[in-house]
Amino acid sequence: MSHHFTINADMGEGIGLHRFGYDADLLPLVDLINVACGFHAGDPQVMRTTVALAAEHGVRVGAHPGLPDLVGFGRRRMALTPEEVDDLFTYQVGALCGFLDRRGLPLSHIKPHGALWGMLADDPDLMRAAARATKAFGVPFLGLAGTAHESVCREQDVEFIPEMYVDMDYDARARLILTRAAHETDPAAAAARVSRALRGDTIDAADGTPVRLDFQTVCVHSDGPSAVGVARAVREVIDDHHRSIPSPEGDNA
Amino acid sequence: MSHHFTINADMGEGIGLHRFGYDADLLPLVDLINVACGFHAGDPQVMRTTVALAAEHGVRVGAHPGLPDLVGFGRRRMALTPEEVDDLFTYQVGALCGFLDRRGLPLSHIKPHGALWGMLADDPDLMRAAARATKAFGVPFLGLAGTAHESVCREQDVEFIPEMYVDMDYDARARLILTRAAHETDPAAAAARVSRALRGDTIDAADGTPVRLDFQTVCVHSDGPSAVGVARAVREVIDDHHRSIPSPEGDNA
Amino acid sequence: MSHHFTINADMGEGIGLHRFGYDADLLPLVDLINVACGFHAGDPQVMRTTVALAAEHGVRVGAHPGLPDLVGFGRRRMALTPEEVDDLFTYQVGALCGFLDRRGLPLSHIKPHGALWGMLADDPDLMRAAARATKAFGVPFLGLAGTAHESVCREQDVEFIPEMYVDMDYDARARLILTRAAHETDPAAAAARVSRALRGDTIDAADGTPVRLDFQTVCVHSDGPSAVGVARAVREVIDDHHRSIPSPEGDNA
Amino acid sequence: MSHHFTINADMGEGIGLHRFGYDADLLPLVDLINVACGFHAGDPQVMRTTVALAAEHGVRVGAHPGLPDLVGFGRRRMALTPEEVDDLFTYQVGALCGFLDRRGLPLSHIKPHGALWGMLADDPDLMRAAARATKAFGVPFLGLAGTAHESVCREQDVEFIPEMYVDMDYDARARLILTRAAHETDPAAAAARVSRALRGDTIDAADGTPVRLDFQTVCVHSDGPSAVGVARAVREVIDDHHRSIPSPEGDNA
Repeated sequence: MSHHFTINADMGEGIGLHRFGYDADLLPLVDLINVACGFHAGDPQVMRTTVALAAEHGVRVGAHPGLPDLVGFGRRRMALTPEEVDDLFTYQVGALCGFLDRRGLPLSHIKPHGALWGMLADDPDLMRAAARATKAFGVPFLGLAGTAHESVCREQDVEFIPEMYVDMDYDARARLILTRAAHETDPAAAAARVSRALRGDTIDAADGTPVRLDFQTVCVHSDGPSAVGVARAVREVIDDHHRSIPSPEGDNA
Repeated sequence: MSHHFTINADMGEGIGLHRFGYDADLLPLVDLINVACGFHAGDPQVMRTTVALAAEHGVRVGAHPGLPDLVGFGRRRMALTPEEVDDLFTYQVGALCGFLDRRGLPLSHIKPHGALWGMLADDPDLMRAAARATKAFGVPFLGLAGTAHESVCREQDVEFIPEMYVDMDYDARARLILTRAAHETDPAAAAARVSRALRGDTIDAADGTPVRLDFQTVCVHSDGPSAVGVARAVREVIDDHHRSIPSPEGDNA
Repeated sequence: MSHHFTINADMGEGIGLHRFGYDADLLPLVDLINVACGFHAGDPQVMRTTVALAAEHGVRVGAHPGLPDLVGFGRRRMALTPEEVDDLFTYQVGALCGFLDRRGLPLSHIKPHGALWGMLADDPDLMRAAARATKAFGVPFLGLAGTAHESVCREQDVEFIPEMYVDMDYDARARLILTRAAHETDPAAAAARVSRALRGDTIDAADGTPVRLDFQTVCVHSDGPSAVGVARAVREVIDDHHRSIPSPEGDNA
Repeated sequence: MSHHFTINADMGEGIGLHRFGYDADLLPLVDLINVACGFHAGDPQVMRTTVALAAEHGVRVGAHPGLPDLVGFGRRRMALTPEEVDDLFTYQVGALCGFLDRRGLPLSHIKPHGALWGMLADDPDLMRAAARATKAFGVPFLGLAGTAHESVCREQDVEFIPEMYVDMDYDARARLILTRAAHETDPAAAAARVSRALRGDTIDAADGTPVRLDFQTVCVHSDGPSAVGVARAVREVIDDHHRSIPSPEGDNA
């Protein structure tokens, strides 16, 4: 595992006049962003402005493809074939690359959104399609350790970056408990969780079971009312951690 | 003007179960195709399969971006800003490039669809936005000589490929008369028109005015009942023309 | 069970320029149609013209609400809540009623489409939401006997009209085997199946098991290449049956 | 003109997770609401919850049909035929009636949204189609006096309710100056404008020209940051006006 940890956040989830999340406030606090690509949220203009903001802040930009379901915000599972998953990735990530190329920025990574994220975590056949598409774009896949995200990436020789969540609960098997609504998170609790995890300690699952998280990046959501406070607290913990550990290899997350 | 002439056709305009046009029958007869990108027609799977078919036939693939209006098939003008035009191009062409990259194929050109085509022909400000996006993709723009398509491409230093239509009427200023419905065209009439145009003769506008067409490529539509017959007739005329004129420079359209 | 049997067909499944099925040819042959409402297929203009055609032919018009998935033609299951099902019914059926009211026609019935049909057959909670919405519109529900369609309608006091299919296979429990593609059906085989079923005989499931179908209406699909031939053959069998049995109560399906 | 004046506001313009405007805060302050119907904004669930809120507050509910353009929030003009306008009205208003019928509420009125509002103000042919659809629903049309809204309603015998705006500028011909973004309005200035207009005095157009407004209802937008303050100030002015003038006929707006 790398000694360098990053913070990532989902961004560009507005559509038209509908703003969403605290993108501008979070950009100075994160390392990577995952940009919505117009299917679960986002539209061509939101994508352009989000990429422009990321460029200003020197933040790396990844794609955040989702299910074709604006009204459901990509949070309702759909019965897709592996081919459909591959095509959804190819279309949406390709579209984002249009905006990145325009600014001379590389695509940093791919991280699926919402119900698609969960479908890929659970179903190795769908995940194989996602891995094929990811490999074609030549970037790492951000996902959850211990799921098909990880096992299929290893099998298909796709670089895998495990992430941890500070604003969602885990079950006793270190699987996230997905819910439809935004989460209210206490910044101090988030910092404490990251701090423990950085030391290699266990954290508490929702039922109290101690679980150990394998991660290189911490996801903070952009839409909760405490999003900025949480990001600031996590940023501090991670920066402290990096200062305390001499990093001979530099920024290599 | 190049001595080499090509045939192009719009393809991939189905959506889901809805098939559209005679793509498979036309592919052996054309040189370039313009692939719908999911806004006026097309969807990720149709795009993948269309690119795959084109690869099999050795046909060059361009993008055919349209207005965000599936129900209107992109044929209803919308009041867009130049920035919105740029973003629509970037998003849709980027998405198509995802599928082309996957097969190792280059993007050949960009040709706007329907009402967007007409808006760009008429409005130099919108066309400047389209030209900027086209330039970023590094490909030529297919359009109508004598309109903002051409003048702005020359101004913005974007390669311009003028096209003629065999299945739509021209007005006395050599402008196409756009209609919403598919056209029924007589293959012999189409061949005669192309034949005259290849010789540099005038053709008849709808009102009988003789007009001279500047073109390098001939567009045949894929959806009329006579589409295949028209394409076959035009193919023959063009092949005859090329045989009659020694082409020292080879295929360079 | 009523002594009167009807034929129903799904119609209005085009979108924009995309025509779908043999609506005009089938209308003289059927008693009821189920009109797509813009979510899985159909659009406001297709709905208006379909209602107008039905009025000309004196055919009764029901609603055919589907999942919000044009690209998937409503054939990909989505994880919906009961409230979402209720709202999808209310919105889509309400929209169709707008067109029916305009012509002074009553809504005849509701029959869900595709994957939504299957979800409601399997899940009593979702079906309860559909039944509530159906009851509010005061019309019968067309569905499959022996599933939650029937049991929930009886529980919620919603009139239930069981239907049989001639162009899809049944499993050994008399459940339809749903597939995504259109079916090719032999008119003679369809007629034979309906004939047996009208006599109360069993038909063969896909695995050969004899199954007995409870039905009052026969669904013929509008999109297969043999759709019109099948409808004609079934019409003949049903008309013969009605002629052979004196019907003191008249047309009351 | 009626002696009774009302306040109306556009509501239900969220979509999925995307909230929009201050619906809950404004409901106690207004008499009529115009509910988005899923084309420029809104979705089936937002429509249901908005109707439910209106029922709780005893507020009358009208339909707010818009162009099929979620990303553009219905603010980009589209070239539609009269038939398409009629169908858009019929579909969207019909869908809303589904939710109103469910609660036993009548449809109160129809007011078009955004660019569709402007197209109908300018084009009598399109407005005739809208008037036909409105007449079929048997409700009044809310619009701008002195435009095709009014002249066509009078010609087609559709009840017309003229409205004034407090948060948008007028030109010298008493026509609204439409802009895409939300407006910041001073509550005191809004109250002063309504106060002058109620007395029959002129207000100042954007260029200073005094213009006289013919109105029965005042529109307050729901999405500006000062929306609630403006509504409260206008409510007070209108209530004062009604108290000062004995109204023998009661609430008849």
